[in-house]
Amino acid sequence: MSYSPLVQQLMEAFRCLPGVGPKSAQRMTFSLLQHDRQGARSLAAALQQAAEAVGECRLCRNLTEAEVCPLCQSERRDGQVLCIVENPSDVQALEEATDFRGRYFVLKGRLSPLDGVGPAELGLDVLEQRLADGEVTELILAISPTVEGEATAQYVGEMARQAGVGVSRIAHGVPLGGDLEYVDAGTLSHAFAGRTSVG
Amino acid sequence: MSYSPLVQQLMEAFRCLPGVGPKSAQRMTFSLLQHDRQGARSLAAALQQAAEAVGECRLCRNLTEAEVCPLCQSERRDGQVLCIVENPSDVQALEEATDFRGRYFVLKGRLSPLDGVGPAELGLDVLEQRLADGEVTELILAISPTVEGEATAQYVGEMARQAGVGVSRIAHGVPLGGDLEYVDAGTLSHAFAGRTSVG
Ligand SMILES: [Zn+2]
Ligand SMILES: [Zn+2]
Repeated sequence: MSYSPLVQQLMEAFRCLPGVGPKSAQRMTFSLLQHDRQGARSLAAALQQAAEAVGECRLCRNLTEAEVCPLCQSERRDGQVLCIVENPSDVQALEEATDFRGRYFVLKGRLSPLDGVGPAELGLDVLEQRLADGEVTELILAISPTVEGEATAQYVGEMARQAGVGVSRIAHGVPLGGDLEYVDAGTLSHAFAGRTSVG
Repeated sequence: MSYSPLVQQLMEAFRCLPGVGPKSAQRMTFSLLQHDRQGARSLAAALQQAAEAVGECRLCRNLTEAEVCPLCQSERRDGQVLCIVENPSDVQALEEATDFRGRYFVLKGRLSPLDGVGPAELGLDVLEQRLADGEVTELILAISPTVEGEATAQYVGEMARQAGVGVSRIAHGVPLGGDLEYVDAGTLSHAFAGRTSVG
């Protein structure tokens, strides 16, 4: 072992990042320490600040350090249409691929009773309250067509129907069993435009 | 733009890492903020500590927070044989691939007069002093066979000859124009064992 303790510690700390193995961690460590100390300090500060301050939006559960996220605050978004997604990254994917001007609700997962993920873990009580408030008139389900995603979509669709809210589901082109965030923008745009009513 | 400022800032900060594009930066950000706050805090602390404290070893120029690195301190290493490498990562690659028991000297670059990299930038004054001290009796040049690497090897080889120190160069199997750190361990081990005298 030829590394000093702080170099070794940094190399191991990089392993918490997705897709980073021993070789990448080593390359990142040497790159920052040899050529970019300022980058290392900026990344440290950004990590520290985000880890302390970022929580979830009271209205949509997306990641934000504010009580209400920029998208839920924006008056330029249509509060009558709510798009239901699994992950924060899905919000970004849809924003880039479509001209959707409504708002979002982020489940942060899918129903999976065996893993202890029920309606409460997905914030469906919060969603139910929002539907009861009466502003939302249409739900768009942008949930991945996996087995657990299907069950989640059915559950949310049933909630919408009971609240008298129209509900549709994006379709066409999202591959069965695929994760939404890996679909290319063109396919996703097509699927969004071609959504079919399930209400 | 659907991200809150701190989320956006973290995403941009990840771009200082080699090989990390917008998609990877997004995946890293969501992964840490959704599933691994503790990992984010540990990485922040490791970056901060390393950026502040890690300097270079007074003897070999390798990265270390101590005045003298673990390898130069170790009494189990042979101080008579010095292996010259370009990068800290080359030290680790040779440690893993060979049974070399001497010590190292890290140039942190190659001679490149047009880029302002001369002998002083590579610490060759420090190396010259070490050769004059008399403990070192053999140099092994493990420098990549690129154009600038060749010039660097010739320069260091000449220094060794003037100091009356034997000098050899690793050979066989390191592809011409290739960077040492991307060579597989078997090839590197073979090249190290088959080094040829150039003194
Ligand atoms: Zn929100
Ligand atoms: Zn050293």
